[in-house]
Amino acid sequence: MPHTIPRRSIWLHPQAPQTVQIIDQRSLPHLVKIVDIKSSDEAARAIQEMWVRGAPLIGAMAGFGYWLAVCEAKKHDQADHYLKRQLDALAKTRPTAVNLQWALDLQIARAVGLDSFGERQVKALETAKEIVEQEVKISNDIGEWGLPLIETLYQKHQRPINILTHCNAGRMATIEWGTATAPIYKAHQAGIPLHIWVDETRPRNQGARITAWELGVAGIAHTIIADNTGGHLMQHGKVDMCIVGTDRTTRKGDVANKIGTYLKALAAWDNQVPFYVALPSSTIDWGLANGLHEIPIEERGSEEIRYIQGWSEETQAIAKVRLTPADSPALNYGFDVTPAKYVSGLLTERGLCAASEKGLLSLFPEQKLKQ
Amino acid sequence: MPHTIPRRSIWLHPQAPQTVQIIDQRSLPHLVKIVDIKSSDEAARAIQEMWVRGAPLIGAMAGFGYWLAVCEAKKHDQADHYLKRQLDALAKTRPTAVNLQWALDLQIARAVGLDSFGERQVKALETAKEIVEQEVKISNDIGEWGLPLIETLYQKHQRPINILTHCNAGRMATIEWGTATAPIYKAHQAGIPLHIWVDETRPRNQGARITAWELGVAGIAHTIIADNTGGHLMQHGKVDMCIVGTDRTTRKGDVANKIGTYLKALAAWDNQVPFYVALPSSTIDWGLANGLHEIPIEERGSEEIRYIQGWSEETQAIAKVRLTPADSPALNYGFDVTPAKYVSGLLTERGLCAASEKGLLSLFPEQKLKQ
Repeated sequence: MPHTIPRRSIWLHPQAPQTVQIIDQRSLPHLVKIVDIKSSDEAARAIQEMWVRGAPLIGAMAGFGYWLAVCEAKKHDQADHYLKRQLDALAKTRPTAVNLQWALDLQIARAVGLDSFGERQVKALETAKEIVEQEVKISNDIGEWGLPLIETLYQKHQRPINILTHCNAGRMATIEWGTATAPIYKAHQAGIPLHIWVDETRPRNQGARITAWELGVAGIAHTIIADNTGGHLMQHGKVDMCIVGTDRTTRKGDVANKIGTYLKALAAWDNQVPFYVALPSSTIDWGLANGLHEIPIEERGSEEIRYIQGWSEETQAIAKVRLTPADSPALNYGFDVTPAKYVSGLLTERGLCAASEKGLLSLFPEQKLKQ
Repeated sequence: MPHTIPRRSIWLHPQAPQTVQIIDQRSLPHLVKIVDIKSSDEAARAIQEMWVRGAPLIGAMAGFGYWLAVCEAKKHDQADHYLKRQLDALAKTRPTAVNLQWALDLQIARAVGLDSFGERQVKALETAKEIVEQEVKISNDIGEWGLPLIETLYQKHQRPINILTHCNAGRMATIEWGTATAPIYKAHQAGIPLHIWVDETRPRNQGARITAWELGVAGIAHTIIADNTGGHLMQHGKVDMCIVGTDRTTRKGDVANKIGTYLKALAAWDNQVPFYVALPSSTIDWGLANGLHEIPIEERGSEEIRYIQGWSEETQAIAKVRLTPADSPALNYGFDVTPAKYVSGLLTERGLCAASEKGLLSLFPEQKLKQ
């Protein structure tokens, strides 16, 4: 990676005290803006306005946000009241993100028994760093478990392995390795020649904007395609495997991921292309069985379909254009559910398993006791 | 339709002599530019630069282009030489469009035995008008045969019928009714309540730009969706039928249509949603059997993926923005092939048939004699 681009998506400022740095992902890939987050209010805003996105990264930002709130509370007349208010504000930024609440709950649990705000401040920073390292380890382990899948394909074909991915389940969604991209980075490090098909991923184009940028920075060969194209490529043997992320996984192995994932899974199934889903086990919702009926699907604003932003080479700035007739309505679902029967395997931090209750319980036997 | 927007996509100027009018489709839906075509050079340019598109409309434009060339030749010193040159230029504009060559061949055949350019000019205009009327009749008949499919769904459900379409197989691709849209317009005229899901159809967005505009002009309820969305809608019972066009059809019923069609056909199959393909029989290539192996797929410029144009509300003009990193490559296939097994039926100007050789021969028995 070029030295000018940070390896992680969040980090402590190397000099300035009480400052966290992130990349403002809204302007990627056109501008790589590194932003200083100096207060808990700024942390909340960064989550809410999607300067950062992706469940693990949101969790890390919330962890640091809590730390900044403790630092602020320490100097405040009504320290406890202030901290509570800031905590509530952080929790409300993206209420559906599981990791957000998990990170805040961990911070609260770790503060138990610590009376002084000085002690709390030290512990909160330690906990925020722990959240970061834990996420990095999970992604790293997903990568290690996924690497043999790519190695096997390479041993078989002895040519660059073509992998298709959808949306961004890369280091900009996590902290370092990504989930779907972790095996790709590991294989690249291991010297396996790769070529990645990057679905642009309308409407927010996380593939064309973020995954392509990440892979370019890492020097990994890739080609951006319209979301419509993957089926044709699979029909003609140009995809060796698919690997995507998931936002929520049922105990039976159904996965909810970015809208359009289901269509690629169908094409993979129709053409006998393996279709893997990479996930930190925190995305498994053991209380759910049938993803199609039980996972609520977020409906987002229609402006994301009707307008798009990109780089204007004329004005050398980010510009927004309308793609549709002024008065045509649009509908924007954020996710779809891929039934387990179309998933070749689930790749977790504990290993690879079948997309089934039996498969998941083989890796997470402690869940049997809870049922 | 509002009186300000023409019912057809090509027509003779009501006053000016030797002038054809078209809509410049490149700026739809943002600007409805009606353009006068006053010479055979302008006709060739309109085809080549895609002011007009869609096989039937290209054929009609070529037919009128030939007429304009005859008008010009009449005043030319070397009339025959001039006509030949203009004919060649027209033929080369989009060499893969079957209807283009067919229209020019018809014009040449009709000129046989006519010595004077005066007679030829009259005949060429008559032939151009005939091409237009023939295309309109074919689309009309596809609509009449398709109407009962929608009527049956309406009788069953007694609520607005949800139809999904991909790309633009509407009147802007033909002349009046469209192919995939013909049954929709007929059902709307018959008073059946409808709602159309319009795939935006990346990368050229013919759905979001042209189909949505057409339906809006016709007052038909519709919603634009990202191409990724149709599978999710079908999983949740929100699509009663799909209907798309085709650019080339094999005698066994495989169809080559705009890239992404195959993915929607898979989703329809997985959710038991009927998937119809509407086509003028001129798109049937009786010499081909296996679409996947025998139909060549056009690869277009990667700029269509990397850049997009739309309406800038800031500058009140059409503007272009880049969507991808500056140095990420992109690949742009124009079409994919949907195998016949995923097609519920082929809708032609002679009726509906199974997507199979037997089905097609039942409607076109004269082809048996040719085999």
